[in-house]
Amino acid sequence: MLELYDLAGAEDDRRFSPYCWRSRMALAHKGLSVKTIPWRFTEKDRIAATGQGRVPVIVDDGRWIADSWTIANHLEDLYPDQPSLFGGSSGRALSRFYNTWADTFLLPGLARFAALDIWRHVHEKDKDYFRRTREERFGTALEKFVADREQRLDGFRQSLSPLRMTLQAQPFLGGDAPLYPDYIVFGCFQWVRCISDFKVLAADDPIAAWRGRMLGLFDGLAAKAKGYPV
Amino acid sequence: MLELYDLAGAEDDRRFSPYCWRSRMALAHKGLSVKTIPWRFTEKDRIAATGQGRVPVIVDDGRWIADSWTIANHLEDLYPDQPSLFGGSSGRALSRFYNTWADTFLLPGLARFAALDIWRHVHEKDKDYFRRTREERFGTALEKFVADREQRLDGFRQSLSPLRMTLQAQPFLGGDAPLYPDYIVFGCFQWVRCISDFKVLAADDPIAAWRGRMLGLFDGLAAKAKGYPV
Repeated sequence: MLELYDLAGAEDDRRFSPYCWRSRMALAHKGLSVKTIPWRFTEKDRIAATGQGRVPVIVDDGRWIADSWTIANHLEDLYPDQPSLFGGSSGRALSRFYNTWADTFLLPGLARFAALDIWRHVHEKDKDYFRRTREERFGTALEKFVADREQRLDGFRQSLSPLRMTLQAQPFLGGDAPLYPDYIVFGCFQWVRCISDFKVLAADDPIAAWRGRMLGLFDGLAAKAKGYPV
Repeated sequence: MLELYDLAGAEDDRRFSPYCWRSRMALAHKGLSVKTIPWRFTEKDRIAATGQGRVPVIVDDGRWIADSWTIANHLEDLYPDQPSLFGGSSGRALSRFYNTWADTFLLPGLARFAALDIWRHVHEKDKDYFRRTREERFGTALEKFVADREQRLDGFRQSLSPLRMTLQAQPFLGGDAPLYPDYIVFGCFQWVRCISDFKVLAADDPIAAWRGRMLGLFDGLAAKAKGYPV
């Protein structure tokens, strides 16, 4: 069976990495069984076989593969008879922009709401590491980084217009059914849901309706995960 | 032959609408000959058959069709044996986000550099209309709207990270060859090039290299259009 090294918080079953959620959903889309292994930020040695220190990491028939985009491509290529993640080669090329948009726009935006809540939930042994690396990256204390989150909320919600308008026109980014870009973007919102009670989306937002559809996929895989109500 | 009502400036051959460029490139991608008809903002009566007042409008075998997204879908459906604009149904669904991203993020961002230059180039009979409608939309005078464009430039260029990272990984948004999303995004940059000498992209930006590839497509269709050097 495939194995997935999956970022966990203080509790083994709080799995909150947005990147791991991309892979988790992609594996489910492909109908592949997976054993998830709780992993913490500081356990770099356990995934040393990949030559880097971040998850998701999968082990597929003895082969270690890191990076969510690489994993999605691996699954698509190695399991071509299972439902396609990209819907063909054009779809695969067109999916890349979703990945870069999520990584450089959506995740940094969401971090300004959830960063301190993440710190509260990470494992005791990760707390210093998380605070130090993130405060270096953000250039400020976690507390200051999220301090004005209530005031930022309207602007952030407005900045999601392209996503909202797309999901008003069709049920999923992939059309009538989800494709890998849905998992890329959903992983970002699932990250927040698993770690924070802050409501980044208004209840009547079409994006929230889509998130609800995503939470229900694969027998409620994402809905059943430990987290906060949306 | 197909006809395209194409926004023109004071000169008949200055065609600058980002939306018209989407259709112009899509028509070329499909290998379809088109007669372009210069049109001005205030000539609503000439496209009244579409029940609305904006271009692009195409007339295909007596059928009037407005809106660049609708036109692209029409061309894809009516000319299925010509090169595909979307690369299949998944590609079509995945293209929609590019359209909403360009319309709600990229075009408004570029308008803050080019709005006054547009006014300078529109036809005499459009000048009042353009200034009035845009100043209402922007909530300020055109001069004020672009006044700080030099200071905004770095931030704007940085905000193009998702596009840049995608085009560092592959030659076109569509992969090895352009698809309709390339035309959506390119139309925005071509809009600026046709109307303004302001350099929105640094010369060494991978996005500029991609723009160069786009300018060269279809025997230099976009490169030959009246405008400013990039």
